[in-house]
Amino acid sequence: MREDARNAANNVNEQRLWQRHAEMAQLGAIPGNGVNRAALSKEDIAARKLLLSWAAKRNYSISADGIGNLFLRRAGTDANATPIMTGSHMDSQPRGGRFDGIYGVLAGFEALEAMDEAGVVTRRPIEVVAWTNEEGGRFAPCTMGSMVFTGARPLADVLDVTDNEGIKLKDALADTLAATPQVAKHDFKSPAAGYIEAHIEQGPLLENARKTIGVVTGIQGLRWFNVEVSGKTDHAGTTPLALRKDAVRDSIAIINALTELTHDPKDVTRFTVGRMLVTPNSPNSVASHVLFSVDIRHPEPQTIARLGDAVEPLARKAAKFCEVKVTPTLHDDPCVFDANVADAVEAAAKTLNLPHMRLSSGASHDAMYMARICPTAMIFVPCEKGISHNEAENATPGDLAAGARVLTAALIELANR
Amino acid sequence: MREDARNAANNVNEQRLWQRHAEMAQLGAIPGNGVNRAALSKEDIAARKLLLSWAAKRNYSISADGIGNLFLRRAGTDANATPIMTGSHMDSQPRGGRFDGIYGVLAGFEALEAMDEAGVVTRRPIEVVAWTNEEGGRFAPCTMGSMVFTGARPLADVLDVTDNEGIKLKDALADTLAATPQVAKHDFKSPAAGYIEAHIEQGPLLENARKTIGVVTGIQGLRWFNVEVSGKTDHAGTTPLALRKDAVRDSIAIINALTELTHDPKDVTRFTVGRMLVTPNSPNSVASHVLFSVDIRHPEPQTIARLGDAVEPLARKAAKFCEVKVTPTLHDDPCVFDANVADAVEAAAKTLNLPHMRLSSGASHDAMYMARICPTAMIFVPCEKGISHNEAENATPGDLAAGARVLTAALIELANR
Repeated sequence: MREDARNAANNVNEQRLWQRHAEMAQLGAIPGNGVNRAALSKEDIAARKLLLSWAAKRNYSISADGIGNLFLRRAGTDANATPIMTGSHMDSQPRGGRFDGIYGVLAGFEALEAMDEAGVVTRRPIEVVAWTNEEGGRFAPCTMGSMVFTGARPLADVLDVTDNEGIKLKDALADTLAATPQVAKHDFKSPAAGYIEAHIEQGPLLENARKTIGVVTGIQGLRWFNVEVSGKTDHAGTTPLALRKDAVRDSIAIINALTELTHDPKDVTRFTVGRMLVTPNSPNSVASHVLFSVDIRHPEPQTIARLGDAVEPLARKAAKFCEVKVTPTLHDDPCVFDANVADAVEAAAKTLNLPHMRLSSGASHDAMYMARICPTAMIFVPCEKGISHNEAENATPGDLAAGARVLTAALIELANR
Repeated sequence: MREDARNAANNVNEQRLWQRHAEMAQLGAIPGNGVNRAALSKEDIAARKLLLSWAAKRNYSISADGIGNLFLRRAGTDANATPIMTGSHMDSQPRGGRFDGIYGVLAGFEALEAMDEAGVVTRRPIEVVAWTNEEGGRFAPCTMGSMVFTGARPLADVLDVTDNEGIKLKDALADTLAATPQVAKHDFKSPAAGYIEAHIEQGPLLENARKTIGVVTGIQGLRWFNVEVSGKTDHAGTTPLALRKDAVRDSIAIINALTELTHDPKDVTRFTVGRMLVTPNSPNSVASHVLFSVDIRHPEPQTIARLGDAVEPLARKAAKFCEVKVTPTLHDDPCVFDANVADAVEAAAKTLNLPHMRLSSGASHDAMYMARICPTAMIFVPCEKGISHNEAENATPGDLAAGARVLTAALIELANR
């Protein structure tokens, strides 16, 4: 590792980073240590102002693009070099925690300050970005800021989206941008030389393996389906089983077949039936209709394609008595991160003597869109019991600082290539 | 068969019986040919008055007991002999049909009139009873009239039961009794020498076997349980299956085990999971809690006892990851009807050249309580596709008359023993 990278990493201030999480957690605080900070809400605006107040004490240039993504740039020595980027989001789930998203923004900002304090200069500028509306809890879809920034969808597609109160995104966005008039204009799809996002794992793998740093090699692919099984209701006492069209019975046959399909001794494949709606849902009536959800995930493109494509034929075959309708509701191909960026993260963790492991992300992140336009990877830190999207979400000051140190070192490494 | 029994059976008037079903179906008529005639409602009072208006043209004595069960007695030659009883109920499900219950009352009344018209005299009196509140749709529990009449529960237990509008049963009962002041007082638990109840099958067995008469040998036993499976919610993308406490997965393991337990090549055992409630019921959240119902029925006491007793230990064994709580919610032992009464029904069907078969009732009936105090059996007639508790409930005039003929002959047979 470069000596300046090590110096800067050592300047990461655990207490300052923790204190800033606590200050941000006041903005939208809910009972039980949780946070409700919807995208483009007054709490989101307050978080943006707080971040900008910290940035104002440093010599960083500040800009925002047309969807409200906020950029803080620490200059490099080469005025023509494209920046290395880092960041995450500041919005939360309606009953969210104190770390999901905001950690990646604060760790990025801590990295810039640690570089300042270590007197480190880099060839490329380094930019911290706070993406707008990653959670999608108020305005659908999620990961909206990075989606629009990277050109995956045009801005016009989302301006008329409304929240549950009927407020249009374009109005909430205008209010948000007007609240920070000091911010310069930033272009969509402005070039980047690399992107590293730090985030809590939102899963239990690091904690279970007693590792501090997750070197994230990609985001797994996802296939969602609604399976509807339609039979006939009958008296539970009088109708012989052979004459029934029992939608619960056939649903269970389908789920058994899908369980077998997705069986994985390595425990990499994720298979979840999380939603079931039974009609008429009465103890002594045979069910006439069941709707259930299927969620299958895997990091390898071939595997998730094979599993996803098997769902409908298998469901039809397994149902012996009822009609079956299978509707795909979501289809995300796996995202494989850049090997050089992941290697830089791993090398930083190794040199800093932090226990680390490679893993794939189970959840989606803004890094998924950034990977389309520049070399990208992520850093995970442990969260307690893998809990997130919940007030009980928790992480330790030490782990958060360790992730920020790895981020600092890796950013300096990439910014000098 | 006795010659007078055959004569009386031949006097059953198919058209009159059908016409009376149509008249009764006007009282509480709902769209789709259905009936909503709640117990002790103004529609129930109207049905009682209509029945009494028909009885007034005959020389039958009329009485009611303290729960409103209505008795019409055709005298026998032996003033000291206990009566043979027949009947069923006049209340309906909220979305009920035109035959469930009312058929047994009208078939009994038709039998009395056919006897009158054939000039038949019997040694014992024959009594038609209309039981109060068999359905339990307005006031719980069901089969209340026969339950109280036979002493299975005291009247005082049910007087303060309220309906959904907060009306107490005792007030609705007082209104009902006041509406038919001409009715004499009838004692609870007054002795009977036998009871035959005619009813639509509410199942598909007779229709499928192309039989007109079901000789009902008993009512199957029933065991109900609520099974609650408690695990832990997790992110569907991030949590490996080995670390999950997935309440849906364990519920399916339990249902698979119960399916195997109740597997019956003869298709006599009934096993139904009709109700499932999943929490939080979101596609990308592992379920933390599932409640599902288990309904198991079998006519043989040993078998239903074995199956019912196996549910809790099997559920605990099948659940690999979650806590399991099994709560019994209903336990009815099988009711085995009297062989002599069933034989009398079968002999009548045979002599009248009606296609018949023996079967067990899948649903509960007032006959279950009467079987505790006197020799009892039932007669089933087919209903279309086995549908009941539904506006689409249907039966043919010919089948209804055939059942009334068998009832008439069997009543005369028993009333002369």
